[in-house]
Amino acid sequence: MDVTYINPFLNATINVIKTMAFVDARPGKPYIKKGDTAVGDVSGIIGITGDNEGTLSITFSQASIEAILSNMLGETISGINEDVRDAVGEITNMISGDARRVLSELGLKLSAAIPTVISGKNHTITHISSGPTIAIPFATDHGPFNVEVCFAH
Amino acid sequence: MDVTYINPFLNATINVIKTMAFVDARPGKPYIKKGDTAVGDVSGIIGITGDNEGTLSITFSQASIEAILSNMLGETISGINEDVRDAVGEITNMISGDARRVLSELGLKLSAAIPTVISGKNHTITHISSGPTIAIPFATDHGPFNVEVCFAH
Repeated sequence: MDVTYINPFLNATINVIKTMAFVDARPGKPYIKKGDTAVGDVSGIIGITGDNEGTLSITFSQASIEAILSNMLGETISGINEDVRDAVGEITNMISGDARRVLSELGLKLSAAIPTVISGKNHTITHISSGPTIAIPFATDHGPFNVEVCFAH
Repeated sequence: MDVTYINPFLNATINVIKTMAFVDARPGKPYIKKGDTAVGDVSGIIGITGDNEGTLSITFSQASIEAILSNMLGETISGINEDVRDAVGEITNMISGDARRVLSELGLKLSAAIPTVISGKNHTITHISSGPTIAIPFATDHGPFNVEVCFAH
């Protein structure tokens, strides 16, 4: 996987979390994921096709998504309900869209599928591909979350 | 979502589970999913783009995937490990490929992203789209599993 893919997804995440939820997301150092280290309680996943095939996922703990969405909606969010799943799906969609826009300016034409949201205590995500999965940990004042990007080549 | 989408995915599931795992999958009546009824322990998800955008998911209980893969591999599978996740990813990929081949013969050009596998006790899956999610329950001698298909239009 071309490392030039990483920054568009990293920057898109910062932009979308800032724009949608008025939260500053501070990226840690991206790393190649070995094993199933990203454990979370709610995840958004979106498939990407075109000049390359891949997936983007974003995984939150229940505490961090409750805090981020409470900040976004201006009301206390408690529990992972339909509104939370819709918001995670929308965040996933927007990060994919923002990153693909930047990548298209670099000459990479990519399309996105519809997002899927997983909820369940301590689930893990594995991207099945011969290409590496890049994990980007983010910190916020409302708790951490993880973005993963995997492309076939 | 066009109902002509359903049979290619239903038949692809039967074909792939038969070919890969030597297991007869018996489809129940497809229905429009309301809420998060499909709870499972391991799921494969793949995004689809092209003439329509969608996702396919297949969700197993731990007991059913252990029994199906034990039958497939000829050895007792216990627990959801890397081999199980790879097999679920491969099954997901093959169902998508077989269904897309049939749909292309009907004039629908579709591409697939890479599969993602979720593991975690009792997770739920929500496809985020304005289109309905069609659920197809399957029974086998090794336990049930669920296929879901969602397309934007």
